[in-house]
Amino acid sequence: MTNTQVTHIQIDNYGPWTVTPEPRREVDLQTLQSRLFADLSQLFGNRDGYVFFTRFDNMVAISNGLDMDAHRLIQESVSNRYPVTMSLGVATGRSPVSALGTATEQLQEAGSAQDKHRREILKGRTIDDQFRSEDDVQIAHFDVDNATEEYTDRLNEFDTFISIEQGYAELMRYMRRAHDSLSFFVGGDNIIAVCPDLDSEAYHDAIEHVSETVDVQLKVGVGRGKSASDAGMDAKHALEACRATGETVELDF
Amino acid sequence: MTNTQVTHIQIDNYGPWTVTPEPRREVDLQTLQSRLFADLSQLFGNRDGYVFFTRFDNMVAISNGLDMDAHRLIQESVSNRYPVTMSLGVATGRSPVSALGTATEQLQEAGSAQDKHRREILKGRTIDDQFRSEDDVQIAHFDVDNATEEYTDRLNEFDTFISIEQGYAELMRYMRRAHDSLSFFVGGDNIIAVCPDLDSEAYHDAIEHVSETVDVQLKVGVGRGKSASDAGMDAKHALEACRATGETVELDF
Amino acid sequence: MTNTQVTHIQIDNYGPWTVTPEPRREVDLQTLQSRLFADLSQLFGNRDGYVFFTRFDNMVAISNGLDMDAHRLIQESVSNRYPVTMSLGVATGRSPVSALGTATEQLQEAGSAQDKHRREILKGRTIDDQFRSEDDVQIAHFDVDNATEEYTDRLNEFDTFISIEQGYAELMRYMRRAHDSLSFFVGGDNIIAVCPDLDSEAYHDAIEHVSETVDVQLKVGVGRGKSASDAGMDAKHALEACRATGETVELDF
Amino acid sequence: MTNTQVTHIQIDNYGPWTVTPEPRREVDLQTLQSRLFADLSQLFGNRDGYVFFTRFDNMVAISNGLDMDAHRLIQESVSNRYPVTMSLGVATGRSPVSALGTATEQLQEAGSAQDKHRREILKGRTIDDQFRSEDDVQIAHFDVDNATEEYTDRLNEFDTFISIEQGYAELMRYMRRAHDSLSFFVGGDNIIAVCPDLDSEAYHDAIEHVSETVDVQLKVGVGRGKSASDAGMDAKHALEACRATGETVELDF
Repeated sequence: MTNTQVTHIQIDNYGPWTVTPEPRREVDLQTLQSRLFADLSQLFGNRDGYVFFTRFDNMVAISNGLDMDAHRLIQESVSNRYPVTMSLGVATGRSPVSALGTATEQLQEAGSAQDKHRREILKGRTIDDQFRSEDDVQIAHFDVDNATEEYTDRLNEFDTFISIEQGYAELMRYMRRAHDSLSFFVGGDNIIAVCPDLDSEAYHDAIEHVSETVDVQLKVGVGRGKSASDAGMDAKHALEACRATGETVELDF
Repeated sequence: MTNTQVTHIQIDNYGPWTVTPEPRREVDLQTLQSRLFADLSQLFGNRDGYVFFTRFDNMVAISNGLDMDAHRLIQESVSNRYPVTMSLGVATGRSPVSALGTATEQLQEAGSAQDKHRREILKGRTIDDQFRSEDDVQIAHFDVDNATEEYTDRLNEFDTFISIEQGYAELMRYMRRAHDSLSFFVGGDNIIAVCPDLDSEAYHDAIEHVSETVDVQLKVGVGRGKSASDAGMDAKHALEACRATGETVELDF
Repeated sequence: MTNTQVTHIQIDNYGPWTVTPEPRREVDLQTLQSRLFADLSQLFGNRDGYVFFTRFDNMVAISNGLDMDAHRLIQESVSNRYPVTMSLGVATGRSPVSALGTATEQLQEAGSAQDKHRREILKGRTIDDQFRSEDDVQIAHFDVDNATEEYTDRLNEFDTFISIEQGYAELMRYMRRAHDSLSFFVGGDNIIAVCPDLDSEAYHDAIEHVSETVDVQLKVGVGRGKSASDAGMDAKHALEACRATGETVELDF
Repeated sequence: MTNTQVTHIQIDNYGPWTVTPEPRREVDLQTLQSRLFADLSQLFGNRDGYVFFTRFDNMVAISNGLDMDAHRLIQESVSNRYPVTMSLGVATGRSPVSALGTATEQLQEAGSAQDKHRREILKGRTIDDQFRSEDDVQIAHFDVDNATEEYTDRLNEFDTFISIEQGYAELMRYMRRAHDSLSFFVGGDNIIAVCPDLDSEAYHDAIEHVSETVDVQLKVGVGRGKSASDAGMDAKHALEACRATGETVELDF
C-alpha cells in the first residue's frame, strides 16, 4: 500500500506579475521559470524528493521525507532569491491523485492563485518519520521504444515532438483516469509516473492503450521506496533491465 | 511574407550519457536540462532570439539576427560550462516548419543523435543583415480564457494541467498541419506559435477548432518583427488588447 | 571547546583545463566558478553547512552535520552537472586551522592538484552524530563601521574596495596567526571568521590590531552552534545588537 | 592611447535588504550574489565586456561596445529575475581609474547606496561606435609562478590563500597608485588588471615591487583590443607565451 506525500507548489499571483506594469520580456520569464524549477529540483532533491515542472507556475513535488520545517526553509530560500514568492500545500493519500487533490484544496481555500494578498501560504501535513515505510512511493519510468531511430533521426524535430507528446498526452490521461496516477514528461522520450500500488497488469494495460490509441510504443520500469529518490532510482534500473531483456514491463520489487 | 530562421539544438549523444555508467540521479538531470535551457534563453535572447524547450534534449530556437559566429560562440559557451556538448543546425524558410525541416536534416546528415563520435556539429546558413526585414518573423501568443477561474482555482492541479495540456496538444497539431506553424507551451496557460504569414481568419479557425475538439477556449495576440523578440513583444501587447477588449484575435500589424 | 569539521574542496586539475586546448573565454570561466560556488552554497547550506569561495578553484566548507555520504552525493551532483570534477578532504579539529590542515593533507597525499589522473578523491572522517554538541562551531561576523558613509558614498568604487580589502587582508592574517581562525570576505563590508573557543577579549584584540595597522574600524557579532548555520545566524543577530547598542563586540552565548 | 569605458554596478540599498525584517540566511545571500555576478558575466560577456565581482554588492565592468540601451536591457533583465535592483553609472576616460571615478560620481550624485528611494539609476555616456578603436582597452593577465608546486600542494589551503591574497593586495594597491590601473582577483592564482597605455617597463616595475614587498613572484601577459574580450583573450595568449618562454612579461601588441 503506497502512502504518497504530495506538495502543490504555486507561484503567488504570477500571471498578473508577468504583465505588470508592462509585459515582461519572454526570455527573462523563461529563464526565471526554468531556474526556479532547477532550484526546486535541488531543494527537494537534496531531501530525496522529486519535483515536476508541470506548468512552471504550478509545480508538483513528491515530498515523502520532507517535514513542514523543510518546506518552510525551501519557501524562504526562494523568497530570498527570486522576485516572486510561492505557496505550498502538502498532503498525503493512498493514491497520488487524492493526495494532490487535498494539497490543492488547501491552497484554494486560502484564496485564489491570483489573489494579490495571498502570499507564502504553507498548509497541510506530512508523514511522521515513524509511519514511513519502504513501499510508500511507487514510481514508474516510461520511455518510447527506439525513439532515436523511429523519430529523432528521421522526422523534423517538431514532428518528433508531436509524436512523443501524443504518447505522453494519452498516457497521462489514461493513467489518471484508470489508475489514479500522476504522469509527467521529463524530457527526451521519458515520462515518470507516480502511482498507487499497481501491479504488472496495470502497466501492460496502459501501454497497450497508448499503443492502440496513438500508435506510440512504450516500455516501463517500476520501483518502490521510502522516498521518490529511492523509488525513482529503482525504476531507472528496472527500465535498464527492459532494455537488456526486451521486456515491456519490469518491476523492481 | 515571413522569413523565419530556425535553429535546431540537439544535445550530443544525451540519452546514453544519462545512463552511463549507471543511471544518473533524476534531480540532477532535471537541474542540468532546465539550466541549460535557461542559459540558452539568455544566450539567444540577448541577441533577440527565442528558444523553446521542446523535449529539453532537443530544443528549437527562432534565431533571426544571429549569424554563424554567434551560434559558434553559444556552442562554445555551453561546452565550457556543461558536461555535455550540443550540435546546431540552422536554416531559413518561408514557413517555420520548412525551415526546421532543413535545420533538422543538417544534423541528421551529420550522424545519429546517439552517434558517440558526432559532436558539436554546426551547419546551415543564416540571413544576411541586408536581407532582413520587419516582417521576417510572425509570432502568436495564445492563452486560455479565464484559466485561473475555470481551472486553477477549481480543479486539482493535475486535472487543470490535463485541460491546459489538451488545449495545447490539439493546437500544436492543428497549427502544424493546417497552418505550417510551430507552437510551444511556455508555462501557465500560455502557448507561443511561430507562424508564416497568417491572417486573422487563420487564427479564428484554429481557436474554433480547439474549442470544438477539446472544449478549451483560447484567445491570441499576434505580432510581427525583424526578430523573435520584436514580434513576440508585439504579440504580448496584442494579447493584452484582447484582455481589454474581449476580442478573441488581435493583430498588431 | 569547539569541534569544527572542515572540508577542503578542490577542483581537479582545473588550471590546465582552463587553457586546454586553448585558453577558454574568461566570462565563461567566471560564470562556471561562481555558479559552482553558488551550487555548493546550496548543497552544503541545505545541510546546515557554510561554504566560502576562497580562490574558487579551492574552496573551504564548514561541514558539521554532513557525513561522508552527504559529501559523496555533493561530489556526484557536481560531476553530473559540470564539465569539471572535484576532490574533497574532510577533517575535524579543535581549531579550524588544524582541521583544515588535516583536510588539505589528505588531498595532497592523494596527488597534486594538477595531477591529471587524480580525480574525485573523497577522504577523511566526520563527527558521529552522538558526539556533536551545541558549541562545536563558533562563528564571528565582522563588518566595517559606517562603510557606506565613510567609503561607498565618498570614494570611487575601487578605492572603497582597496580600503575594505586592506581591512580584510590584515584581519585574515592576524586571526590566523594569533587566534587559529579562518576569516573569509563574503561581500560588501562583511567578513565571516570560523574560530576556536575565543572570548570577547580576543575579538577586541583583533579589532584593535586592524584599526591600528590599517585604520579600518570593525565590529563583530559572535555565535555558537551545532552547525555553521546555527552559529552563523546567532552571529548575525549579535552583529545587529552591535548596531543597536554601539558595542564593538557582542557574544551571543 | 586607451579609452576605457567603465560601468559601476551597484545593488540598490542592498545592506538594509539583507537584514530586513530579520537577517537572511547567509547561504541564500551567497547564492544570490554569486549567481547575480554569473549572470552579469554572461550579460556583459555576450557583448564583449568583462565584469569583476569586486565586493559583489558593487561590481565593476569594462563595457566598451555596450551602449546605453544594452545597459538598460541588462538592468531590466536583472530586475525581472532577482529580488533586488541595481543602478549603473557609465563613464570613459584615458585611465581606467579616472573612468571609474566618473562612473561612481554619477551614482553618488543620485543618492546614497543605502537610500531606499534611489532605484535603478542609469546614468553616463558611452563611446560612439565611430570613435572606438583597436587600442581602447589594455588588459594584463597576471598569475603566480609555480603556484601549485609552491603553495597549493604544500601548504594548507588557507595559508596558500593568504600568500596569493597578499600578492594580490600588494599588486592592486601598487597598480592603482603607480599606474592608474584596476586589478581584480579572478580565482586560482589569477589577477586581471585593466590598464592605461602601459609599456613593458611598467609591468616589470610592478612585478618587482610585489616580489620585494611580499615575496610573491608574478608574471604577466598583456593584450589590447577594441573590447575587454579581445584584449583579455590576447592577454591570455601572451601569458601562455610567458609559460612557454620563461619570460616575466609578454606584450601581445
